[in-house]
Amino acid sequence: MRNIVLGICYDGTNYAGFQRQKNLPTIQGEIEDKLMSVLKEDVRIKGASRTDAGVHAKGQVVNFLTGSSIPVQRFPYILNDRLPRDIRVIWAKEGKPGFHARFSAISRTYKYIVYNKNIISPFVARYALIYPESLDLYLMREAGEKLVGEHDFSPFSPEKGKTIRRLQLLDIRRKKNIIIFTLEANAFLKGMVRSIIGYLLQIGSQKLPKSVMNEIFNGKYDFKSILAEPQGLYLWKVKYDSSLFKEE
Amino acid sequence: MRNIVLGICYDGTNYAGFQRQKNLPTIQGEIEDKLMSVLKEDVRIKGASRTDAGVHAKGQVVNFLTGSSIPVQRFPYILNDRLPRDIRVIWAKEGKPGFHARFSAISRTYKYIVYNKNIISPFVARYALIYPESLDLYLMREAGEKLVGEHDFSPFSPEKGKTIRRLQLLDIRRKKNIIIFTLEANAFLKGMVRSIIGYLLQIGSQKLPKSVMNEIFNGKYDFKSILAEPQGLYLWKVKYDSSLFKEE
Repeated sequence: MRNIVLGICYDGTNYAGFQRQKNLPTIQGEIEDKLMSVLKEDVRIKGASRTDAGVHAKGQVVNFLTGSSIPVQRFPYILNDRLPRDIRVIWAKEGKPGFHARFSAISRTYKYIVYNKNIISPFVARYALIYPESLDLYLMREAGEKLVGEHDFSPFSPEKGKTIRRLQLLDIRRKKNIIIFTLEANAFLKGMVRSIIGYLLQIGSQKLPKSVMNEIFNGKYDFKSILAEPQGLYLWKVKYDSSLFKEE
Repeated sequence: MRNIVLGICYDGTNYAGFQRQKNLPTIQGEIEDKLMSVLKEDVRIKGASRTDAGVHAKGQVVNFLTGSSIPVQRFPYILNDRLPRDIRVIWAKEGKPGFHARFSAISRTYKYIVYNKNIISPFVARYALIYPESLDLYLMREAGEKLVGEHDFSPFSPEKGKTIRRLQLLDIRRKKNIIIFTLEANAFLKGMVRSIIGYLLQIGSQKLPKSVMNEIFNGKYDFKSILAEPQGLYLWKVKYDSSLFKEE
């Protein structure tokens, strides 16, 4: 069996998330269905990250095993001909036997885009959070610094069990009216990025003091109360060791 | 009665065009319904241009008469609170009594955006024509020059009757993989921009010789055969004489 790895881009607006669900449109469902109809075999894809409903991806990575001998470079063309146009396959590589899109990943990078303006363009509304209030980037950066490093991020997620993650980067930049948050970690808990962004926006607009980040780690705030909307979130990049791929 | 003029922006993907139609979502229908529910009076809006299904607008202009005394600057806020987020009101002014969004317009500018690349981002697919073939801008510009000026544009439209229009500008530029066509005319016939773009793309990809523009004016080609898709088209700007608006 060959191990095919695909780089995927999608507009998540019209999907109930990455993970396959019965009777709902999902990214995994669309890709698996198209692969099965072409390959005439049962296909299960593994994704690097199970993005939530409405979340976008610029750099999702999936892999699957196949007995087919279709040249690996053909997969983007074959799938893009069949997939809805809000899902695109950007590249294809052959992975070595042990490659797993989720477990082999070294790190994930997410970006969250905020449109910091009152009257907004409808061309932006699907792809950013519209947040008209004044935002202090220095306050958000100071609060964000407290999160960088290895922590138990359970206050930012409903996930139970192993909740320690290593946040390597939390960068916040403004380009005119657009504010871009970039977060990189070995892995993220469910809802973790949107919860962090939710708190940072409260701090940046001075509805919460920046000291709240210490209190959150002490369990003072509730996760669900402050989740930022999904349409601003993008799975941007997933890193792997290049030795996991076959030579081209 | 006051004459209120609104600047409107919309993502046309989910609408059956500007003009009100029974049982179909339209831009006119959405705006009129929201105005009537707020103003508690019958409202009919006039649009500068009746954009087709799927066509976008960055600078549509509409006007309507009202007995209401709501301050004009309030209309963007009132409507944006109620409209779906793919339709936004960008500005509001008070017009003098005779102002008519369609008949008072001096010129309309449209832009058509082509994404000239093979594998494309899903974030672009709603907002541009994806056209992967190589395009020669010099050939398209030479052919386009033949269209500038006052002509009977009936070969580019199914419209009958008065079909003479004055095309003042046809500009074609490339920014990396994006090609932007800008057309300005006193007015356009139905389908005229998409038909012109359809021909220019055939000429630019050398499927038709540039001399075809002369033959089109002699009635050799059929309008419908070559209409470019709507998602690349934007009503960009409508010009009026500033004396038609009240002082602010």
